[in-house]
Amino acid sequence: MLTCINLAEKFSRFNDHWHPRIIADLNDHQVKLARVQGEFVWHSHADEDEMFLVIHGELVIETRDGSVTLGPGDMTVIPRGVEHRPVAREEVQLMLIEPGATKHTGDVLSDRTRDVLERI
Amino acid sequence: MLTCINLAEKFSRFNDHWHPRIIADLNDHQVKLARVQGEFVWHSHADEDEMFLVIHGELVIETRDGSVTLGPGDMTVIPRGVEHRPVAREEVQLMLIEPGATKHTGDVLSDRTRDVLERI
Repeated sequence: MLTCINLAEKFSRFNDHWHPRIIADLNDHQVKLARVQGEFVWHSHADEDEMFLVIHGELVIETRDGSVTLGPGDMTVIPRGVEHRPVAREEVQLMLIEPGATKHTGDVLSDRTRDVLERI
Repeated sequence: MLTCINLAEKFSRFNDHWHPRIIADLNDHQVKLARVQGEFVWHSHADEDEMFLVIHGELVIETRDGSVTLGPGDMTVIPRGVEHRPVAREEVQLMLIEPGATKHTGDVLSDRTRDVLERI
């Protein structure tokens, strides 16, 4: 049987920031949800593209070449190797899709780096 | 520079049903949008999981073991090999994510099978 995954219900299960949860596996990729607020660390992923879809709020993704601002219903793909920093003035609810091996802080180790993400 | 991809703007570019458009590449996967209405063909994808996220409307995905009903903000992953049939009583706007090689009618050739999808 297939499972209906309701994004709002999944978001209701956690409130902390910069701590993605896995909600589904898709081939070698994982679908994750995160709440973010403030500035993240500059980082990149050498071998993986990363997709961001904004569900709620407004997210700025800075790159060394400029920035893009995403509202609800907006998405972008950050190509592998592109250094970026997400910034959210107010809380943003995000869907992230990336290969399962991807660390959310990329090659940068930070106190925000989490090795094992929960599944919800 | 990153690109902001607004889903509503992308949907405004086409009106036909069962004809997905590619809006982004994500590693070896593609992100697609489709408008669907009515019943699709029963099919499966032997080697690929397929993700459906409903943006607008209500989609029933039938499997041989039962069905799941998805509204806006609901998603599911159809595991590889699971025979399924999407059904939409009224028009549904969908996001699909699957490996680039995936045909939307799976192993079933139908007059709805499209070999080359446009990028919008």
